[in-house]
Amino acid sequence: MLATRTVEIDTDQAPIFVGIDGGGSKCRAIIYQQGEILGTGVAGPANPFHGFDQALESVVSSTHLALKDARLSEDSIGELIAGVGLAGVNLPHLFDKVNRWAHPFKKMYLTTDLHIACLGSHQGEQGAVIITGTGSCGFSDCETPLVVGAHGFPHGDKGSGAWLGFSAVEHVLLAMDELADQTLLTEKISTALGCKNDLELVEAISGQKSSFFAKLARHVFESANSGDHVARNIIKDGADYISELARKLWKTNPSRMSIIGGLSPVLMPWLDKDVSTRLSAPLAPPEMGAIFFARNKLAEELKITTEA
Amino acid sequence: MLATRTVEIDTDQAPIFVGIDGGGSKCRAIIYQQGEILGTGVAGPANPFHGFDQALESVVSSTHLALKDARLSEDSIGELIAGVGLAGVNLPHLFDKVNRWAHPFKKMYLTTDLHIACLGSHQGEQGAVIITGTGSCGFSDCETPLVVGAHGFPHGDKGSGAWLGFSAVEHVLLAMDELADQTLLTEKISTALGCKNDLELVEAISGQKSSFFAKLARHVFESANSGDHVARNIIKDGADYISELARKLWKTNPSRMSIIGGLSPVLMPWLDKDVSTRLSAPLAPPEMGAIFFARNKLAEELKITTEA
Repeated sequence: MLATRTVEIDTDQAPIFVGIDGGGSKCRAIIYQQGEILGTGVAGPANPFHGFDQALESVVSSTHLALKDARLSEDSIGELIAGVGLAGVNLPHLFDKVNRWAHPFKKMYLTTDLHIACLGSHQGEQGAVIITGTGSCGFSDCETPLVVGAHGFPHGDKGSGAWLGFSAVEHVLLAMDELADQTLLTEKISTALGCKNDLELVEAISGQKSSFFAKLARHVFESANSGDHVARNIIKDGADYISELARKLWKTNPSRMSIIGGLSPVLMPWLDKDVSTRLSAPLAPPEMGAIFFARNKLAEELKITTEA
Repeated sequence: MLATRTVEIDTDQAPIFVGIDGGGSKCRAIIYQQGEILGTGVAGPANPFHGFDQALESVVSSTHLALKDARLSEDSIGELIAGVGLAGVNLPHLFDKVNRWAHPFKKMYLTTDLHIACLGSHQGEQGAVIITGTGSCGFSDCETPLVVGAHGFPHGDKGSGAWLGFSAVEHVLLAMDELADQTLLTEKISTALGCKNDLELVEAISGQKSSFFAKLARHVFESANSGDHVARNIIKDGADYISELARKLWKTNPSRMSIIGGLSPVLMPWLDKDVSTRLSAPLAPPEMGAIFFARNKLAEELKITTEA
């Protein structure tokens, strides 16, 4: 059994922050004070578009876990300055609804998951970021904030893991009807899903979410690396979109641009050279971006209070 | 108030049939005796894949409505020989489950909606049929029954109304990000859905079913007919698939092939000439195909009984 150390927080001297990165599958929290990470926690889905109450619950439980990891009591949640970046709150009505939440923090500063990913990548400074994981999108906070993509699955998120997996399945269904080329990709997807024919494949994929299709993306890359022309065409189409998205973000004149997300390492070689060679490594994760966001917002408020 | 005439049915002399065509959005029933249609009825969705109990309920209530239309009592459902063609029962486990149903008919012969559509098109004779409405597929009952497509939305059903509408929305989302051409199609889809930007469009389409997207197909055709190259490319891609599907069906050597479904009249001019010129007009609707199916099955059974 772990002993719990209860800490008295004097927020006048050194505020304790929690940075929250809430996405479609999980919610990360990080507790931070004076340049030091005290603890981290991970909880379930936190996209209020796909479940409002669940999202708020994940924000709270990831914070509780991070507090425990920091050996702080759950009660001290009321002393935390929270920077919260959530998927879905790019929709104005969801932003307002989350912002009206009777949250348990001392203060809460809300923004999108894209914004904190960007702030994290550039250590709290302005810049641009491309995210390619289960979904895809681009963001720049230079001048007017610009969001490119982030439209969701299955109608958007071109070049993402879910899009690649879904495109592969679309092709395999055509191939099983002998109306498209049967290649290594057909074999790999069928084997991965344990399907012998199109009927079984339709049953296996029906009603599945983006995360299911994103898991199939590795088979597309493996097939492409073995020279499969169908897989190569799918990846090229997705990667070309990401290259175009990057060019659009460069037009906002960011000092730095990064690509993050689970798919980014494998997608990098497929991007156009003029795009890939200009990208900079991300400096910190999105949850740290949420800390930077809260710190900046708090500083602004204190400045306004002092000036008034 | 309508008077109800109750009819005594002597099934030894002239069996009364009910033909059922059950699809994703509605269920049609037709009562038939000795070459005469006595009544028709329409009820709700009847695809057991999307709602098993609802499908059976629609089969029964469409029959009740058809009986009422025929001025027969609801009780006489127990005297009907039912031919039932349902969407979704191409999946073996659903076929078995519906077939085990303690149905209210005297006899029930079950098959797919594709099979009865084909039998209807060719007046009970063998042939092939292409269906392009909300979804798309091909069917031939020559030699081994062959199903092409019928994979469902959004992963399949290329060339269908839902596919055309969905493809248009995908393009409009890219165009709203200025990563694809903004054309008349962008304007028509935005206006139809009352959306000024991509965020509003994402909200409008999220979680919508195939029928929602199928309603957008007319805007794709209208744009294409005004010369919009984006709309033309989408339709051409879908129509090329339907042409390939037709060629695959011709390989089964059907004596006739028809195209049916709400989209078929507008899609016809986009099919390859070698395909469109070989198509024959459908002779009867799917619910009549269900009658032909039941009549054939009953005749087989009687023959077997007589021979035994």
